[in-house]
Amino acid sequence: MLNSFSSAISPLLDQRMPGHALPAGLYTREDVFKADLDVFFRRHWIYVGLECDVPEPGDAHVIDLGSSSIILLRDDDNQIRVLHNVCRHRGARLLDSGTSIVSKLVCPYHQWTYELSGELAYAPHMGTGFDKTCKSLKPVHFRSIGGLIYVCLSDNPPEDIGTLETVMRERLAPYDIANSKVAFQSEIIEKGNWKLTIENNRECYHCSSNHPELCVSFIDLDFGFDPASLSPEDREEAERHQALYEARTKAWEAEGFPSAAVEQLVDCATNFRTQRLIIAGAGESQTPDATAASSKLLGSMTRKDLGDVHLWGHNCWHHFMGDHAVCTMIIPLSADETLVRTKWLVHKDAVEGRDYDLDKLTSVWIATNEQDAQLVARSYSGVLDPAYEPGPYSPFTEGQLDNFATWYIDRMRANGY
Amino acid sequence: MLNSFSSAISPLLDQRMPGHALPAGLYTREDVFKADLDVFFRRHWIYVGLECDVPEPGDAHVIDLGSSSIILLRDDDNQIRVLHNVCRHRGARLLDSGTSIVSKLVCPYHQWTYELSGELAYAPHMGTGFDKTCKSLKPVHFRSIGGLIYVCLSDNPPEDIGTLETVMRERLAPYDIANSKVAFQSEIIEKGNWKLTIENNRECYHCSSNHPELCVSFIDLDFGFDPASLSPEDREEAERHQALYEARTKAWEAEGFPSAAVEQLVDCATNFRTQRLIIAGAGESQTPDATAASSKLLGSMTRKDLGDVHLWGHNCWHHFMGDHAVCTMIIPLSADETLVRTKWLVHKDAVEGRDYDLDKLTSVWIATNEQDAQLVARSYSGVLDPAYEPGPYSPFTEGQLDNFATWYIDRMRANGY
Amino acid sequence: MLNSFSSAISPLLDQRMPGHALPAGLYTREDVFKADLDVFFRRHWIYVGLECDVPEPGDAHVIDLGSSSIILLRDDDNQIRVLHNVCRHRGARLLDSGTSIVSKLVCPYHQWTYELSGELAYAPHMGTGFDKTCKSLKPVHFRSIGGLIYVCLSDNPPEDIGTLETVMRERLAPYDIANSKVAFQSEIIEKGNWKLTIENNRECYHCSSNHPELCVSFIDLDFGFDPASLSPEDREEAERHQALYEARTKAWEAEGFPSAAVEQLVDCATNFRTQRLIIAGAGESQTPDATAASSKLLGSMTRKDLGDVHLWGHNCWHHFMGDHAVCTMIIPLSADETLVRTKWLVHKDAVEGRDYDLDKLTSVWIATNEQDAQLVARSYSGVLDPAYEPGPYSPFTEGQLDNFATWYIDRMRANGY
Repeated sequence: MLNSFSSAISPLLDQRMPGHALPAGLYTREDVFKADLDVFFRRHWIYVGLECDVPEPGDAHVIDLGSSSIILLRDDDNQIRVLHNVCRHRGARLLDSGTSIVSKLVCPYHQWTYELSGELAYAPHMGTGFDKTCKSLKPVHFRSIGGLIYVCLSDNPPEDIGTLETVMRERLAPYDIANSKVAFQSEIIEKGNWKLTIENNRECYHCSSNHPELCVSFIDLDFGFDPASLSPEDREEAERHQALYEARTKAWEAEGFPSAAVEQLVDCATNFRTQRLIIAGAGESQTPDATAASSKLLGSMTRKDLGDVHLWGHNCWHHFMGDHAVCTMIIPLSADETLVRTKWLVHKDAVEGRDYDLDKLTSVWIATNEQDAQLVARSYSGVLDPAYEPGPYSPFTEGQLDNFATWYIDRMRANGY
Repeated sequence: MLNSFSSAISPLLDQRMPGHALPAGLYTREDVFKADLDVFFRRHWIYVGLECDVPEPGDAHVIDLGSSSIILLRDDDNQIRVLHNVCRHRGARLLDSGTSIVSKLVCPYHQWTYELSGELAYAPHMGTGFDKTCKSLKPVHFRSIGGLIYVCLSDNPPEDIGTLETVMRERLAPYDIANSKVAFQSEIIEKGNWKLTIENNRECYHCSSNHPELCVSFIDLDFGFDPASLSPEDREEAERHQALYEARTKAWEAEGFPSAAVEQLVDCATNFRTQRLIIAGAGESQTPDATAASSKLLGSMTRKDLGDVHLWGHNCWHHFMGDHAVCTMIIPLSADETLVRTKWLVHKDAVEGRDYDLDKLTSVWIATNEQDAQLVARSYSGVLDPAYEPGPYSPFTEGQLDNFATWYIDRMRANGY
Repeated sequence: MLNSFSSAISPLLDQRMPGHALPAGLYTREDVFKADLDVFFRRHWIYVGLECDVPEPGDAHVIDLGSSSIILLRDDDNQIRVLHNVCRHRGARLLDSGTSIVSKLVCPYHQWTYELSGELAYAPHMGTGFDKTCKSLKPVHFRSIGGLIYVCLSDNPPEDIGTLETVMRERLAPYDIANSKVAFQSEIIEKGNWKLTIENNRECYHCSSNHPELCVSFIDLDFGFDPASLSPEDREEAERHQALYEARTKAWEAEGFPSAAVEQLVDCATNFRTQRLIIAGAGESQTPDATAASSKLLGSMTRKDLGDVHLWGHNCWHHFMGDHAVCTMIIPLSADETLVRTKWLVHKDAVEGRDYDLDKLTSVWIATNEQDAQLVARSYSGVLDPAYEPGPYSPFTEGQLDNFATWYIDRMRANGY
């Protein structure tokens, strides 16, 4: 029977073989999807946006996360707040999607009015016995890590976010992301399960055949290769690149820029990886010719040759370069649809047309996202096929997918499935 | 887990706290939706249309009620009939949606032919042993109450429809709705659960901020207020209005027009409320300037100053005024979509352009319905949010929602949930 | 409760009364739909396409069957192959829908490369220990029966396909369908359950009122009639036709063209019926005037007066005439949607405009399919209605529906439901 909903999830978790993709039902079943939302998008930390989405006091930015909606805002004391976008009266959404400027949060349904702290200030017709103090807007656990906003929607957020915070605060400091500017944002809906979206992002095995634009600046060999699969010329180049990478890392670190890979991928709640990668070709930025798209560099950066600080989480991937950053998050919409939201950041004072060219800035990842969406759809369609069985990951190029699948199974187990 | 379908409905009914909105699952869960259809739209009386939908013998009007479809028709003896729109052969729909003129009911699939009484008159190729008498179209229980058609799709319709019938027959008599004309009809689909649609209709707490057009003629204070929430001026006006309302009711009743509120809201199967309300401003009608939209008054009415006879049921709301009436029904399409169908009635001899202006007639409720649809969608979106918890109803302005929620829980219990 | 999913399927099978349509739930329930896909579209033989879909070596034609996708191809040795369209690595679809020309099958995701036999030829970065021999593309059980491709997606295909093969190989030989050409293809999605689509196809009780174009060449009385339902003139004509049919069958058989009806409809896994039918009017073809649409006849045919060899299966119907053939398959998309794909075949050397007129060739069945889609939708809508109860089949005109419903119940039982 196709996608049976009758059996429990646990046997599916048992079926997963090390070194192989997940059993089909973990990608396709509705009950698994609901469990995924609960476990991975409520009980774990997820990246959802940026401090610079709300640059000024009174700025409020609504972030929809499936059926959840949260308000990221900057209060009058310039502090970031994150509140649930649900009126405590009859549940109406306080703010619509997008960005608003507010002095109070007023529910349009019956005018219940909240302070930017979330406290209920005014609720007409509720009578004198009504206790406003227990009807504040519910706060959301959040951390701003170098300007990136991570939230956890549950009451008991995992504590190991601390490692991510320590590592990334230092690495991101020179980029001053909190004071950058969102130059462009795109959203696409991939026709596939969110775990296929993440698996696709965790390997560059597919890059050379599918991402001509990205491969100008991105080096697929950085993510592993089987020497036996390369021609003598390619093998030589791979070895040259590996030597170069070691030398650069050493040099960057000596200059005070932490660069070596840091991974917290299995045996943990909060999954991340970061590393300073070499940019190919002109070596500056992920643009069509690998030169910087913005002449005004991010934060306190003075050099364009500091590579690409990449950062992965289980719902995001980021690239921080001298001239700009690209920050992508995903949110599952259903078992078979995943929203991919990408923001391109430049220095807050950079002016389009003068300091940066928007098309040059965005074209590589717009193309790459579109290509990835096609691949994810093609992959999901096959996983739905009764003839699908989980295939083997390449031990050279797909080790990170094995880590992700292992972490996924472990976290399901740790959460009672 | 979001919207779990696994647990039974009964625990959700237990969770409801008096004075508070319903637990989220009762608005959002698929199993509750199916139970709702069965209990509230099959085993209870619902308003579905009007005698004047089929003014002449042979007129047939199809009414789709979710997956049910019924035919309201007027037979050759001028009697109203209501039949299931399902051929007794292979189930094909006999008539398409909308209105037709028929002499027999002929199934387009295999030409089975029924009398307007529902009796099977002709069924070709069925052989000589075939007994036509047990293959009549199934009749639907119905009552015409002052020209309003109520049906019950189950075999054991609740008997307390009698109270509604007694009360409304007298109040509606002067309006002669059976001999009115449908001047306009609108349908919108609200993106929310049907119970939110009804809750929204049962309070005017939201009116002043959301319904500028309606508030010209409609007095939100009629539906309750907290004196402490009003400014001294507003409080004074409210008191003035209350005195005026008492005086008017007394005067109307003395003139033979029953006006006082009659409620059958809890501890009953058939839920209704009626009252003759004052119309604000010019005092005549729910139009942009509160003056009558039709110069030809309904039925035997000779006065425009008899206010607004409102009538509520669990799937409808109506306003009967001197010059016109507005009759609205709802039908749930899914847990998250509700059809709202509104008909504007005028005297059957009233001619558009001469006796009434269509835009003036319809604009207030077209705008109000649209505004309400936005509010219901905003509310449903919040109820879906895992951060939602049922909030307190205002004891002053939302008492009718408490009655509705109490009735809802009781009727679910009475029907075995 | 509408369409309850809670109860098992078996009680529904018990409820079916002989001589009557199926209980509603067997047409509408989601769990029954999943069971149907498994039983009737995976564990039984289904017709899916034609040898002439891939006329040349290297031609590959993707056939989507619900969530399954298979590749029909012709290899370099001119042999037909049928393979699952699922890469053995991470499941990606190898080929897109439609037809391609290939020398190898290369997965666009990571370049895994298969021979046209399905063997894995190349898989980069998999390491030296990787055993390619167990990662061939999975083959699909198939038979080409006179050029018609039947597949069975399960590992244990029913053996009684042999009877169909024996009967049809002989009857189809003169038409040489393997060497015909697909002149036109249409797809429509009927808004109804697949079993209603088949039931609709298994009777001509509805033809005279619904298919004016088809009735020029098609004789509804061939599919049964109640003499008592006919006028004296119609009865006389029916009797004349019956005598003519017997004479023609005898004459055709004497000339070496098997014509008598062969049925394997109940007490079997593989359900089919064939018979050579008389074409009405001009007697040549199912066209608007019943004359041939193509002057170049199929295969080795030299005569246009050999009637219409019809063939039914549980997911198909076919008509083979002197000048052209019409082959239709269905695939359920959901409980309430069914894809109907029709192909019109002519001699491979026939040239449009010179040998045949495309509009004349296709217009009868394009119109008929559209009319049938309306009837199936009308029927499905009624079956969804809680007021539906299974009606009696005509013993004269709907005996084949009774056979189909009986076979359906038996096969569900035989497969464990």
